[in-house]
Amino acid sequence: MAKVCFDNRFMFTYESKSFPGVNKIALQVRKDLYLVTGFHAGEYAKGSKCKNLVIYGTVDKSDYLDDLDKRGLIHLDDIRGKWEVYSFQVLDNPIEGVDHALVIAGSDKRGTIYGLYHLSELLGVSPFVNWNHAYPRKRKNVFLTDEVNTVTKEPSVKYRGFFINDEWPAFGNWATEHFGDVNARCYERVFELLLRLKGNYLWPAMWRNNFSMDGPGLESARLADELGVVMSTSHHEPCMRTGEEYSLLRGKDSIYGDDWSFINNREGITRFWRDGLLRNKPFENVITMGMRGERDSKILGEDASLKENVDLIRDVLKTQNDLIKETINEDLSKVPRQIVLFSEVEEFFYGDEKTKGFKDDPELEGVTLMLSDNNVGYLRTLPSEDMKSHKGGFGMYYHMDMHGGPFSHKWIGTTFLPRVWEQMTTAYDYGVRQIWVVNIGDIGAQEFGLSYFLDLAYDIEKWGGQDAEITRKYAAEWVEKQFGAMLPQSGRNKVNKILWDYTGLLEKRRHEIMNENVYHPLHFGEADMVLETSEGILKEAKALKKKIEEEHLSAFISLLYFPACGTANLMKMWILSGRNKLYAEQNRIEANDIAVEIDACVRTDAELIDEYETVDGGYYKGFGKSEHIGFVNWNQEDDRFPIRRLVYGANGSRLLVARKDDENYMTGTEWCNKPQTWRDMLRPDVDKIEFDLIAAGKEPSHFKIVSDCEWLSFSKTEGEVRTRERITLSVNKGLINEKIVGTFSVEDVGVSKAVVTVEAAPGQVVPNLFMENDGYICIEAEHFADKKTVAGGEFKILSPYGRSGSAVKLFPSTADFSGEKDLPYLEYRFYAESSGTYNITFEMAPTTPTVFKPKQFMAYSVNEEEPIVVNTVRQVDRPFFGSPQWTLEAMENVKKVNVAALCKEGENALRFYAISPGMILERVLLVRDGVEMPESYLGPRESYRFTLTN
Amino acid sequence: MAKVCFDNRFMFTYESKSFPGVNKIALQVRKDLYLVTGFHAGEYAKGSKCKNLVIYGTVDKSDYLDDLDKRGLIHLDDIRGKWEVYSFQVLDNPIEGVDHALVIAGSDKRGTIYGLYHLSELLGVSPFVNWNHAYPRKRKNVFLTDEVNTVTKEPSVKYRGFFINDEWPAFGNWATEHFGDVNARCYERVFELLLRLKGNYLWPAMWRNNFSMDGPGLESARLADELGVVMSTSHHEPCMRTGEEYSLLRGKDSIYGDDWSFINNREGITRFWRDGLLRNKPFENVITMGMRGERDSKILGEDASLKENVDLIRDVLKTQNDLIKETINEDLSKVPRQIVLFSEVEEFFYGDEKTKGFKDDPELEGVTLMLSDNNVGYLRTLPSEDMKSHKGGFGMYYHMDMHGGPFSHKWIGTTFLPRVWEQMTTAYDYGVRQIWVVNIGDIGAQEFGLSYFLDLAYDIEKWGGQDAEITRKYAAEWVEKQFGAMLPQSGRNKVNKILWDYTGLLEKRRHEIMNENVYHPLHFGEADMVLETSEGILKEAKALKKKIEEEHLSAFISLLYFPACGTANLMKMWILSGRNKLYAEQNRIEANDIAVEIDACVRTDAELIDEYETVDGGYYKGFGKSEHIGFVNWNQEDDRFPIRRLVYGANGSRLLVARKDDENYMTGTEWCNKPQTWRDMLRPDVDKIEFDLIAAGKEPSHFKIVSDCEWLSFSKTEGEVRTRERITLSVNKGLINEKIVGTFSVEDVGVSKAVVTVEAAPGQVVPNLFMENDGYICIEAEHFADKKTVAGGEFKILSPYGRSGSAVKLFPSTADFSGEKDLPYLEYRFYAESSGTYNITFEMAPTTPTVFKPKQFMAYSVNEEEPIVVNTVRQVDRPFFGSPQWTLEAMENVKKVNVAALCKEGENALRFYAISPGMILERVLLVRDGVEMPESYLGPRESYRFTLTN
Repeated sequence: MAKVCFDNRFMFTYESKSFPGVNKIALQVRKDLYLVTGFHAGEYAKGSKCKNLVIYGTVDKSDYLDDLDKRGLIHLDDIRGKWEVYSFQVLDNPIEGVDHALVIAGSDKRGTIYGLYHLSELLGVSPFVNWNHAYPRKRKNVFLTDEVNTVTKEPSVKYRGFFINDEWPAFGNWATEHFGDVNARCYERVFELLLRLKGNYLWPAMWRNNFSMDGPGLESARLADELGVVMSTSHHEPCMRTGEEYSLLRGKDSIYGDDWSFINNREGITRFWRDGLLRNKPFENVITMGMRGERDSKILGEDASLKENVDLIRDVLKTQNDLIKETINEDLSKVPRQIVLFSEVEEFFYGDEKTKGFKDDPELEGVTLMLSDNNVGYLRTLPSEDMKSHKGGFGMYYHMDMHGGPFSHKWIGTTFLPRVWEQMTTAYDYGVRQIWVVNIGDIGAQEFGLSYFLDLAYDIEKWGGQDAEITRKYAAEWVEKQFGAMLPQSGRNKVNKILWDYTGLLEKRRHEIMNENVYHPLHFGEADMVLETSEGILKEAKALKKKIEEEHLSAFISLLYFPACGTANLMKMWILSGRNKLYAEQNRIEANDIAVEIDACVRTDAELIDEYETVDGGYYKGFGKSEHIGFVNWNQEDDRFPIRRLVYGANGSRLLVARKDDENYMTGTEWCNKPQTWRDMLRPDVDKIEFDLIAAGKEPSHFKIVSDCEWLSFSKTEGEVRTRERITLSVNKGLINEKIVGTFSVEDVGVSKAVVTVEAAPGQVVPNLFMENDGYICIEAEHFADKKTVAGGEFKILSPYGRSGSAVKLFPSTADFSGEKDLPYLEYRFYAESSGTYNITFEMAPTTPTVFKPKQFMAYSVNEEEPIVVNTVRQVDRPFFGSPQWTLEAMENVKKVNVAALCKEGENALRFYAISPGMILERVLLVRDGVEMPESYLGPRESYRFTLTN
Repeated sequence: MAKVCFDNRFMFTYESKSFPGVNKIALQVRKDLYLVTGFHAGEYAKGSKCKNLVIYGTVDKSDYLDDLDKRGLIHLDDIRGKWEVYSFQVLDNPIEGVDHALVIAGSDKRGTIYGLYHLSELLGVSPFVNWNHAYPRKRKNVFLTDEVNTVTKEPSVKYRGFFINDEWPAFGNWATEHFGDVNARCYERVFELLLRLKGNYLWPAMWRNNFSMDGPGLESARLADELGVVMSTSHHEPCMRTGEEYSLLRGKDSIYGDDWSFINNREGITRFWRDGLLRNKPFENVITMGMRGERDSKILGEDASLKENVDLIRDVLKTQNDLIKETINEDLSKVPRQIVLFSEVEEFFYGDEKTKGFKDDPELEGVTLMLSDNNVGYLRTLPSEDMKSHKGGFGMYYHMDMHGGPFSHKWIGTTFLPRVWEQMTTAYDYGVRQIWVVNIGDIGAQEFGLSYFLDLAYDIEKWGGQDAEITRKYAAEWVEKQFGAMLPQSGRNKVNKILWDYTGLLEKRRHEIMNENVYHPLHFGEADMVLETSEGILKEAKALKKKIEEEHLSAFISLLYFPACGTANLMKMWILSGRNKLYAEQNRIEANDIAVEIDACVRTDAELIDEYETVDGGYYKGFGKSEHIGFVNWNQEDDRFPIRRLVYGANGSRLLVARKDDENYMTGTEWCNKPQTWRDMLRPDVDKIEFDLIAAGKEPSHFKIVSDCEWLSFSKTEGEVRTRERITLSVNKGLINEKIVGTFSVEDVGVSKAVVTVEAAPGQVVPNLFMENDGYICIEAEHFADKKTVAGGEFKILSPYGRSGSAVKLFPSTADFSGEKDLPYLEYRFYAESSGTYNITFEMAPTTPTVFKPKQFMAYSVNEEEPIVVNTVRQVDRPFFGSPQWTLEAMENVKKVNVAALCKEGENALRFYAISPGMILERVLLVRDGVEMPESYLGPRESYRFTLTN
């Protein structure tokens, strides 16, 4: 077994004919190896003796490789001509005097670089080693055997990269702090990160900076090319020039004119574009085409017709292609170009019934059509059958960070892997394989999501597929990579849990749009769930932090502690604010205690940012800066910290009696009593209810709980309440043979007496049916009783996934059953307490139609009636993107489709049929007509069902 | 000129044949005179010498009077046989050895008593001398001349009194504190107060007490009779027995049975009534008839039909009349009886189309029909023409205090005299003259309103009429009576202003139903008005208090300081709470300062009550106790103190720009700016607008105001804002010849810039037309341009009156123009800026229909179109009383009738026609269709009108 060791005797080759960028990366890898082994690699001199040698190079750019190839020790033909491929071979005695060698041969510049970084990775070096100072384990006796030998395949997606966007105040401040500007020194770090993550493509920061001017000059562009980074410009910046450039260069006497209008200033704009193409011609680029208004606005006024817009873009495209032919290559097919169908450009592309869009314009031939997501990670239109053969292929402009509608999310990365996994795998299935670019905002605090996006793009076979469980595997590996050196497996397991917990919270609601009104403070325990998860994160993360050694704090805080605790603390703060609000409205004394806790959270928020920005000598300074609390507009303008509400106790004592999970309370007073009946105990799985005795007066209450029902018992029956006392009511179901009704009273001695009616039963059990209780039936989609698979369509469970943790999706992602008779379905069986109308809500992932028309169909049926087809899009006279439904679904991360059906008393079967592609069912809620469900964000917990596993 | 002096040489007669009660009152009057003069009156022995003598007695009960009459010095025939009349004569040498005498001769027991108290009054003794220790001026050389000689007329209303009700915790605690119980010792004080106020009739406290059992025994009843107080029982307690009595005496073995049901327990109930009648037979009573359920509830269940209810009451009436004939007098016409048409009893009385009520039942002959108000002082049904001849006449059960729907008002008396003046004068005009009884709650803090009610009932010619100005006269005299001894005229003027100010606030909204949501915190300056009035009261009252000598503090605090400051502080507290809420929602830093002020108000509330209850050795202990803050139900259960909201400043600086009177603000930020246009300056009377620069951030803002309009100027154009800075914008109208539009900007330097557009004009002036501005025209009803008077109907201005201070009413109060063609009207002329629909709101006093049917009509017309008749009652399928409209109008003290009309551009004339009786127009608001008026409670200020007096 061939073997190569990395101890005090290993060396690296160096060839001047190699790509200079490749040699630069080799130096980095040598530093990486030093971190692991403690030994500096020497530089191998040809012909000298060497125990262990790393030989690297690119096809046709290395004498060593040519020699090895000639001698049959490696096979360059395996990689030659391929895109970003490398061969990675451990060999014994490859060269005279060399005992062992690792041979890294790249098919091209980036292939070699990826091969080099592969070595670092194999030795446990994180891609974030320099970005987050995520240092590897120090190891002794480090070696590789030929078991690692491999020849890679081409990456799944050709161009894989990110967009530094919305980069102030975070990235901008960070760059200024460390490099004085967003210049080449800064980009060198960014390029390294991109390449280590196996990316190759970048849209540079452009809010206040000009990539090709600030290097200084072209230095950043030159460096990118040297290191193999393919540059482009953002979706609305054509011909390799930023929007800010025009602002800088325009003027009355400017050769470019003084109007960003292709109609009024055709000559100036054309010249501006030509000069940009000429300037950046030496480098590897993907050229953005098309045109939008200044600062990402509409190109024509609100009054312009669709035809005027389409005609303008056609004209622009023709002009740009002519310029490219003139300046770069007569053969346009040799020039990578893209057009981004973002915002309203999508409308101009597709056109409408009256006006043809520019979709089939010949100028688009060979231009990559960049599609985009709905700004929060759900794809918009996908290539239809007729488009699939488009020369130039398709790309995806995806958002993990957004400064814009429906809301900005910029602070801490919010990526919940299953969402990205499901959507980007779908994109790939639809043929979106040419370019993937993700808006990653400030980079800082986005590392986890960015890693997955680029890894998926690099190897979709490995990280895609139809089983969401792969995301757990990814997360576990990611944790191992970043935290392996600082925590034992038990600690890493905790990190893993924290990672899922905080991104799980964000999958329900993101930071900026959290507020006191999102979760109901009590109903269905949803606020309790968020609060407990958040407090768990804070507690565990704090405990872990104590165990981290100083040198690892930088990585621990930036990659876990800050994003997790920042998120958890913010969620906690808003849950407390919601409680404070409700409690204050109800005069609960506890509101005042909660106000103090809110204040602590506000302070903690600042402290967490401060800790992140000061750790590691202030290395992350700037990265915590984005506003993130209480947005009331799409952006941070006029945002709000929580309001703290303080109450006065009522005169005397006042006792409120309320279920832990119900905002309605009883005062038990003479005239305004509101007696309640509790029916949960009719469920076979419920024999306990927690309720609160709540002080709302200046004086404490002396309470007494009395009941003559021997089947009822209480955790406490007498005492004093100063703030709140939680009581557990238990039913001894062993004493009950049939439905029984009893009462108990809670007396505020001498003041009031609340009487509660309790209904209990051993529980109606019909095997495999979800049982109605309190007027509703709630079913997690994964708990279908039956499913029908047809040719070309099969439902599979997604887990982990979505707000509730699981869902069901029809595969393949491209399956479209429009117009088909034989539909795949899921069947849910439930027991209705009475016959009549039930209002049904299908809770689905907020996917958007894959077609531009506002059409996305599902169907349902009850008890084998004919399926009723429903368009999930409510407003059909406008594009879905930008509609109120789009906004709401993007914010709540759920699509709710409301229908109604007649059910019969007893057993019923409800079927859900997928028709349009991309329907993902999460939950089903049936509510008897006339029953008013308590307000909530996530809805009730699942109904009871007796199965053999119960 | 005859003259009698009250110095160290005056005496009182004493005759044992006189009514013992009369002699008791004479002793009180002698004490009153001592307070004034410092001299104790001696007791005159017949035949002895005497300089100055007070001779008092009752027709046929005094030898002195008989002698004087015989000698022609007085004329008993002037008063003999009359009801409660007295002759009051100053004579020289009336009896041998007596130089000067005052002869007080009463037609009956109460006539004499009123005559005696008249002497106290003439010498400046307040009726509240013993109740509130309102001590008179000490005077030297006190005398009366024959200029005061008078023979009174009979009182306007036969039975005049009050109802001590809802008497816990205030009156109950007070009585227990001072007398150990609500017993005869307590009632002696109450009777004295009643008689001094010229009342004669009482419904005793009955929440937890039994007037005829707790004296002890019959002592209270006996004492009432001795002093001439006519007793009755409350509206739902028949046959001189309280409801609580039955609770005490019922039981399984009770002779009265154990069921308050005339159906199930006819025998027991009948016996209970018979025993009551027999027990109280010796005394002067008005016997309550009819029957309600226990504790003032419905007598039959909710399911009982109208017929069942009517039949039951007929049966009850017959039984009760039979009992009265059997026990008291065969001639029922000799026995004063009443039935109270309160709550749903009114429905049973009138019946409906299908079921005749008990209205014309022969058993009602001779029974006084007691009508009632809507629980807040507006009368319900009044005697229709066909009822007016009813034998037994009519009475009124009126509320100045209420424990019940639509809301309780129990704390401090809320009486605004013009409301009582207008309504009770109307009642009198309708023939309601037999009994007036007012629910006065706890008596404490209700003294002002009670005085007026009884004075009006005693002499309606003096205090009624058609000119509301009489209430100002009354208030001034009342102030003189109570505060004459302690304050000079200038001080009393201030007291008078305070009195009007605080009752004026209460006329807009009462204590218990004030909350943070009543007045808009900014719009139309309504909150400013309440706040300024409240702060003025607090400041002036405090200043006055410093000048009050110790012995007068008791009266000053109880009759003015506590009710005025208690009210003002409460209003202030809620206005601040409303501001705190809005400001917190808008992130204004000022919210935090206001929270501190709210806390001060909460503390002040407690301190004021404490001061009231501890002054004068704790004499008022109990009277401040009623809950009065933040009712959310009709009663105090679950009431709420204000919530204080605290905010955090946004990061950095944030400047909000807002008009002083507008909740909308501008941030002047890049994406979410909301520029405003201000149009007030188009009004000829407006050349200034105040606006605020409001800090909402952690850091102060540096502001700069810039405009290139030379016709605009600012009170300040640069500076720093830490909380709020108020700027006055002035327009130099001298520089403007026509409508002009300009802008100015307010910059938060380096952060944001808000731009305001200002429209200004010299002002469009059309003489005598109200000019539209900002889309609306608002007119005070008193500012009609024309009015039409017809036979039997003339509009007159009421001032002071209502929420806005004035109104217009059609007189006489009984005028009914239903079915008439020739209607009286008011005409309003205004200038509309454009032709089109205008939505018109007639704001009227919330009077209720005078008939039982839900019908109350007015009419309106625009530009001499045919009048359109409108029923002001919105829900016509149910009685008005108890309807949502009734509730809302009672709470807001306004009836809003919304109609719409087409107006033309330019001059228009709107007419308001009264049809049903009792329509009182306060304001008219016309809003151009499509214009959304800012939220407010009181509405906008009046529009501009150019008149010759301008």
